Amino acid sequence: MKENYSQWYNDLVMKADLAENSAVRGCMVIKPYGYAIWEKMQAQLDRMFKETGHVNAYFPLFIPKSFFSKEASHVEGFAKECAVVTHYRLKNDPNGKGVVVDPDAKLEEELIVRPTSETIIWNTYKNWIQSWRDLPILCNQWANVVRWEMRTRLFLRTAEFLWQEGHTAHATSDEAIAETMKMVNVYAQFAEEYLALPVIKGHKSENERFAGAVDTLCIEALMQDGKALQAGTSHFLGQNFAKAFDVKFADKEGKLDYVWATSWGVSTRLMGALIMAHSDDNGLVLPPKLAPYQVVIVPIYKELEQLNAISAKVDEIVAELKLKGISVKFDDNDAKKPGWKFAEYELKGVPVRLAMGPRDLENGTVEVARRDTLTKEVVSIDLIGQYISNLLEEIQKNIYQKALNFRNEHITKADTWEEFQDVLKNKGGFILAHWDGTPETEQKIKDETKATIRCIPFDAVEEEGKCIYSGKPSHQRVLFAIAY
Amino acid sequence: MKENYSQWYNDLVMKADLAENSAVRGCMVIKPYGYAIWEKMQAQLDRMFKETGHVNAYFPLFIPKSFFSKEASHVEGFAKECAVVTHYRLKNDPNGKGVVVDPDAKLEEELIVRPTSETIIWNTYKNWIQSWRDLPILCNQWANVVRWEMRTRLFLRTAEFLWQEGHTAHATSDEAIAETMKMVNVYAQFAEEYLALPVIKGHKSENERFAGAVDTLCIEALMQDGKALQAGTSHFLGQNFAKAFDVKFADKEGKLDYVWATSWGVSTRLMGALIMAHSDDNGLVLPPKLAPYQVVIVPIYKELEQLNAISAKVDEIVAELKLKGISVKFDDNDAKKPGWKFAEYELKGVPVRLAMGPRDLENGTVEVARRDTLTKEVVSIDLIGQYISNLLEEIQKNIYQKALNFRNEHITKADTWEEFQDVLKNKGGFILAHWDGTPETEQKIKDETKATIRCIPFDAVEEEGKCIYSGKPSHQRVLFAIAY
Repeated sequence: MKENYSQWYNDLVMKADLAENSAVRGCMVIKPYGYAIWEKMQAQLDRMFKETGHVNAYFPLFIPKSFFSKEASHVEGFAKECAVVTHYRLKNDPNGKGVVVDPDAKLEEELIVRPTSETIIWNTYKNWIQSWRDLPILCNQWANVVRWEMRTRLFLRTAEFLWQEGHTAHATSDEAIAETMKMVNVYAQFAEEYLALPVIKGHKSENERFAGAVDTLCIEALMQDGKALQAGTSHFLGQNFAKAFDVKFADKEGKLDYVWATSWGVSTRLMGALIMAHSDDNGLVLPPKLAPYQVVIVPIYKELEQLNAISAKVDEIVAELKLKGISVKFDDNDAKKPGWKFAEYELKGVPVRLAMGPRDLENGTVEVARRDTLTKEVVSIDLIGQYISNLLEEIQKNIYQKALNFRNEHITKADTWEEFQDVLKNKGGFILAHWDGTPETEQKIKDETKATIRCIPFDAVEEEGKCIYSGKPSHQRVLFAIAY
Repeated sequence: MKENYSQWYNDLVMKADLAENSAVRGCMVIKPYGYAIWEKMQAQLDRMFKETGHVNAYFPLFIPKSFFSKEASHVEGFAKECAVVTHYRLKNDPNGKGVVVDPDAKLEEELIVRPTSETIIWNTYKNWIQSWRDLPILCNQWANVVRWEMRTRLFLRTAEFLWQEGHTAHATSDEAIAETMKMVNVYAQFAEEYLALPVIKGHKSENERFAGAVDTLCIEALMQDGKALQAGTSHFLGQNFAKAFDVKFADKEGKLDYVWATSWGVSTRLMGALIMAHSDDNGLVLPPKLAPYQVVIVPIYKELEQLNAISAKVDEIVAELKLKGISVKFDDNDAKKPGWKFAEYELKGVPVRLAMGPRDLENGTVEVARRDTLTKEVVSIDLIGQYISNLLEEIQKNIYQKALNFRNEHITKADTWEEFQDVLKNKGGFILAHWDGTPETEQKIKDETKATIRCIPFDAVEEEGKCIYSGKPSHQRVLFAIAY
């Protein structure tokens, strides 16, 4: 991990059976173990969306090309990287070499595979909204999207990825702004409580704003190599899309006005954040709340008779753990040695491993190993249910605390351009520094150092200072980092 | 419904807020109420897949064109109706008219938006399988697929639809055949217990087989207009895809052989089946197990004070119902009249409606209305929890029984060509008739009557007879119908 973080990451994603590259450039296959973690993320996020009043729906995969031209900055942001459907039929190659595109089946208007769905959704909302009675609309969609990235990395940046996108419509600006804030808070809560990932909430600068948004809120996390990762965004879209698609509503007095919008999303990129934030040279470290199985039990035996005796006892433990809502796997595969299994489940980040041999059986004990600290303890079977239940909570907290400590140690204040460059070069992490507020200065800093403004934190305090780059006056520090 | 079934169906889908056509030809928007039903189907199917040992994964949306040519009958079946991605970038129109496809961004090999994923998945499995130890692989994927249908209908036949596709790999033919049978049984159980839809299980004839399959099993249901609907299929693929993608495994003796395959799927088409099987002129009729909310409570009042008193009592009822796992909505919207609400929830198929007015409050009663029978009863509030719980079970059974009676009344034996045509013309439904077993005869019958062989039922009994069309000898009856 320390030698070559990037290689370590790729190897880990492959070896832990999370995902792999497919035959299609930039598209990944999410393997069952990786998908099981994503399913747990989805289930929890979906609960949180529903608790905050949202409903799911589904909108088309394809977007007519002309829709993109309707919102000027949106097309600038997305047209450069999209998959374009131009034909709707193949035919047998007249030369007998497989199949070719049928030139007679050319679409009148090309279709874009959605990179994000604001345009098709606002074109749909136009028919759903007449008056204030039809508002708010609080829809979410779980979907795949395609952005034709040139340099891809498993989970972090892929041509196709899975995500959810919320799209809401409101009668007032205030209500839409409150929704934008509500959802960035949902994301932050999810990241901290489930991913065990501390995040900093803030506003994006103009340069980093979503194409078509008035304001973009985000959560920013720190990875173990000192680079930042944007883990979720929530956009206040103002009336931009309502104007582009002519969506008006009659208020209580009958006056017509354009509708106010938000959109917000997180994606399979969270898998990348989860992997990079906690794992080590032995493999994945999964927070118990997202582990496909929280406990694995490995029997240690020489003869099959011993295995049978151990299995009988393990069945009781499994039953007790399940009763407490703990997911558990008993690996009694006779074709693999315990040592192989220990390494395998460490690699896969299973939070707790129990091992039971003939002596344990005699003594009424079991060996309990923690993945996060790699420590072991011998525990009485009588107490195992409550013990494991407490331990899983303890592990979830410990993983979060470790990531929080690392993150806090890597927030550095820089007051001069030299300090700024020095921190980037020798320490990494987040830098709190003054900035003159102009896109030009941000761009120059990026060109010279690759560092960007990750966000203007919600909790930034007013403080007079000078921009580290231009020396012009500034009233608060913003958060810089080199980012994924 | 009786006057114009097709119009009735379309109107119902729109009016009950299930789905609507989008701006993209053939693609639908699934609205929140429709999607909530689909989510319930998904959740239950997913449970059943996991109980039978399957795991979820995710494979790419795009399939390289050349993959399609590798399995000869597969390309014949799917190449004629697919969306083709040829470019990966748009650019500003030099003439200033929006955006155009950038001719410099042409893909070397075109990508097909998946119509089904056998090819990309078997290309992936090639790397996952070396020996018998790697088998079986039991993967399922929840995904969107695209088939460029020329004539589309909401849920029944759309260019894009949502589905699940299981793809399994096995060491032996027997094991793959058993898997194919297991999954058609899972589908049948789901249809009968959840959709309340009786189905007939059987084998497809050669003409109706999946492109690339050795055998296709299916479940066939009957709609209220007498037309059949294929509600799910499970394919035994033999070694066809393993051969096309060169996927071999070493058995326990080290001998190499091609891997055996199955695939199976159901789609948002099930929504169409659900709607058409049970609904009536008042709207949807939903089986309680799939209703987004099973009970709606409507207060009847003149003054706000009355509403407050009713609300207090309703809160108790809601709490009791929720405790029993019953989903319930209390509609206290003051802007709508009770009559409007009654009609609305009938339209939306809510299984049970409770109405409570001042007199009910005095008497400790509530009016209970059933959607399936449109009958009402006055029930004591003291007993309401258990009463509703029993009633929902009763409704689920009744809806199934009604569909079963209708289906059974519409299975007719025909022994002559005249009888066959007469039943199709005057009665509709399924026809059990002798067939000579040839694709040519089946095709001729289809050309003359539009009826196809829906399946050769598993429970067909041996019986000597003559083909209703050719008069040639036959040993069992097969199931004909005009189908969606």
